[in-house]
Amino acid sequence: MLQDQQYLRIPGPTPIPPSVQRAMAKPMIGHRGNETSELIRSIKPRLNKVFGTKQDVLIVTGSGTSGLEAAVVNAVKPLDEVLVIVTGAFGARFVNICEAYGIRVHKYEVEWGKAFNPIEIQQHLRTIPKISAVFATYCETSTGVMNPIHELAAAVKEVSDALIIVDGVSCVGGVETKMDEWAIDIMVTGSQKAFMLPAGLMFIAVSERAWDVIHSNPNRGFYLDLSKYRDNLAKDTTPFTPALSLLFGLDQVLDLLEKEGLENVYSRHALLKEMVRGAFKALDIPLLTNDEDASDTVTAVRPDEIDVEQFRKVIKKEFGLSVAGGQERLKGKIFRIGHMGYCSPADVLQTLSMIEIGLIQSGNEIELGKGVAAAQRIYLKNGANYR
Amino acid sequence: MLQDQQYLRIPGPTPIPPSVQRAMAKPMIGHRGNETSELIRSIKPRLNKVFGTKQDVLIVTGSGTSGLEAAVVNAVKPLDEVLVIVTGAFGARFVNICEAYGIRVHKYEVEWGKAFNPIEIQQHLRTIPKISAVFATYCETSTGVMNPIHELAAAVKEVSDALIIVDGVSCVGGVETKMDEWAIDIMVTGSQKAFMLPAGLMFIAVSERAWDVIHSNPNRGFYLDLSKYRDNLAKDTTPFTPALSLLFGLDQVLDLLEKEGLENVYSRHALLKEMVRGAFKALDIPLLTNDEDASDTVTAVRPDEIDVEQFRKVIKKEFGLSVAGGQERLKGKIFRIGHMGYCSPADVLQTLSMIEIGLIQSGNEIELGKGVAAAQRIYLKNGANYR
Repeated sequence: MLQDQQYLRIPGPTPIPPSVQRAMAKPMIGHRGNETSELIRSIKPRLNKVFGTKQDVLIVTGSGTSGLEAAVVNAVKPLDEVLVIVTGAFGARFVNICEAYGIRVHKYEVEWGKAFNPIEIQQHLRTIPKISAVFATYCETSTGVMNPIHELAAAVKEVSDALIIVDGVSCVGGVETKMDEWAIDIMVTGSQKAFMLPAGLMFIAVSERAWDVIHSNPNRGFYLDLSKYRDNLAKDTTPFTPALSLLFGLDQVLDLLEKEGLENVYSRHALLKEMVRGAFKALDIPLLTNDEDASDTVTAVRPDEIDVEQFRKVIKKEFGLSVAGGQERLKGKIFRIGHMGYCSPADVLQTLSMIEIGLIQSGNEIELGKGVAAAQRIYLKNGANYR
Repeated sequence: MLQDQQYLRIPGPTPIPPSVQRAMAKPMIGHRGNETSELIRSIKPRLNKVFGTKQDVLIVTGSGTSGLEAAVVNAVKPLDEVLVIVTGAFGARFVNICEAYGIRVHKYEVEWGKAFNPIEIQQHLRTIPKISAVFATYCETSTGVMNPIHELAAAVKEVSDALIIVDGVSCVGGVETKMDEWAIDIMVTGSQKAFMLPAGLMFIAVSERAWDVIHSNPNRGFYLDLSKYRDNLAKDTTPFTPALSLLFGLDQVLDLLEKEGLENVYSRHALLKEMVRGAFKALDIPLLTNDEDASDTVTAVRPDEIDVEQFRKVIKKEFGLSVAGGQERLKGKIFRIGHMGYCSPADVLQTLSMIEIGLIQSGNEIELGKGVAAAQRIYLKNGANYR
C-alpha cells in the first residue's frame, strides 16, 4: 500500500492545510516581545468576524474541554442551578463539568440524533425559575446534529435571565455564527475542527452581561480565569505563555478564510453536507439525523446491513481512511464522517468512493458509484455557489 | 473555493509525500563532510534495486534532459551515426540533443500513440550497419505509451553492437526496470516523476560495455562527464555540490519504496492504469493508446465531443485539478492524466470523479458516476494486490 498517505475524515482533529503547516514551522519567538504582540493584533479583529461579535475573542492554550470548563468556572457559582440541554455526548460533558464544581444541574435530555426545540426549552424553563445559565451544544459531534442555537436566546429570554452558554467546538468557523445578534452570552470553540489547526487553542467570547456575572464571581480558578485573558488581550498579550506555533498557524488560517470569504466557507460546508447525505440516500443507507437537524460539519450514518466497527477497520486498512465510530449508546451502530475545515467537494467525492468500496467489502450489496453520482449531481446543481 | 488545495495529476512533476517534504526541510549540512557521505552510502544500494543493475547509479544535479544530454555526450562521438526511435515528443528530444553535437541521426518514426516493434527495429538496423547507439524512450510521456524496452537489446544485438540508451524519465521507479537483465547500456531518469521528488536530480546508470566506450571518448564535456561522477561515487561523494535537500528527500523516498515493496509499487501503478482506462472505456471516451501499448504511469485521453483545452481550464478553475494537455501534433486533441509516484487508487477515484463533473460542464453528456464505478469494480477485482 502506498506509504505516507492517510485520509482523515473524522469530525476533528481535521487535516491541516499545507500553508498552515508551513506557518507553524516558523522559528520560535519570544512571547513577550513585539513580534508576538503584532501577531495577536493581526489575529484579534479577524476572530471577531468568525464569532460574529464585537466582544473580545479570548485565546487560551488548551483543548475544547478547557473552554467548556472556563465557561462553567467563570460564569456559574457553586450551588447555582443550571439547565444543560443534552443532545449527545458533548452535552453530557457540560453536566460532568458542572457536577465537578458542585453546581446543581437540571438535565434536559433530547433523543440522540435529534435537535432540541427552543419553544420546548422555554416551556421547560417555566417549571424551574431559578436557573442562572442554560448550556447548549451548537453542533453535537456525537450525533451529527446542528441545534437551533440562533433561536435559543430569544426563546429563553421570555421566561428567564439565565446566561446562554454554547459549546461551538465542532462547527464555529465552518457555519454561520452571529453571537451578538443571537444574544449568546458565552461561545466556545477549539482549534482542531473547522479552524483547520491541531488541537491546542481554545477560543472563547463573553457578552457584557456575562462579564458582569463573571466579575461578581470571586472563585474563578487561576489558569482559566477569563478576566486575566481579557485584560492581557487589551494589551495584545496573553496571561500565560501561549502555544506560539499554533498562533502562527491561526494567523494563516484566518488568511485562508478571508481569501475564500466567510460566506463561501459556510456555503461550502452546507454543500458538503448535501453531497454526503445525498450519496447515502441514493445508496439507500439510513442516516441518523433528519435533514432539518443535520449538521453541516459532520454526518452520522446508521447502516443496517453491516458490522460498523468491522467496516471502519476495512476502510482504514484498505485506504488509510479514518471515519469516526459511535459514542456511548451509539457505539457500534453508526459511523460519522467529518466534512469540515480543510475539506473540498472533491475530498467528499473521494471519501464516498472509498466508502462504497468498503461497504461492498463489508458485505453491503450496494450499487457501486451510485452514491458518488448522487453527490456529483448535487455538486453540479449547487456548484455555482462553490466556485 | 477552498484555498491552498491543488490536485496535481500531470505526468510530472508529481505530488511530494509529506514525510519527504519534511525530510527535505532538514537543516543544511556540509557537502564534503561525513554526514553527506553517510547519506550517499544509504542511498547507493537502494537505487541499484530500482534500476535493476549492479552498476553504480550516478546521481547528478540536473533535470531529466541533462541526463539525456549526459548519455549523448559521454557515449557518442561527433560524426558517429545513431538511430533514434521517435515515438513522441521525448524521442524527438534525443534527436535535437544529438544534432546539437553534430552526431548523424537516423530517425525511426513511429505513429504517435503507438509503441515501437523491436523486430521492426532489428530489420531497420540491417539497412544502416554503422550505427553506434540506439536511443529509445521507455515511457513516452507525450502519448502515454510504454515501449517494449525489455525486448529491445535482444533484438538489436542480433544485427548490431550499438549501445542501447534509454530515457526512463517518466516511469523508472514506478514500473519494473531490469537494466542488467534486459542489457540496457545507459538508463536515465529524473527525480520529479515516479521518484516523488521535486525536479533537480537526475539518475543515470551505465553498463561495463558503455563505460568502455565512454573511457575511449576524449570529449565528454565537463559538468556532465560521467566518469567524474563514477570516481566520486566510489568514495561516497559527488564531483560538484549536490542538491542536498533533494538527497535528504531521496533517502526518505527510498524508505517509502522499501516499506511498500518494489513489487507492490509496480503492481499499484499497473492497477492505477487499469482503473483510469476502465473508467474512460465505461464512459465511452476514446483513449489515444491501445491496451497493449499503454503506460502504467500516464494515460492519454482523446475525447471527441469537447474542447480539450477548455475542459482543462474548467477543471483547474473548478477544483484546482491539473491534467496535462497534448504536445505538438497532439495539442488540443488529448489530455493526459499522470498516475505515478505519490498516487493511490483513492486518488485516481477522486480524479475521475472531478473529471466526470468537468466533462459535463464542458458539454459531454456522460452518465455521472459511471467511470468511477468502473474503476471501483477494477479496484475490487484487483485490490488484493494493492493491500
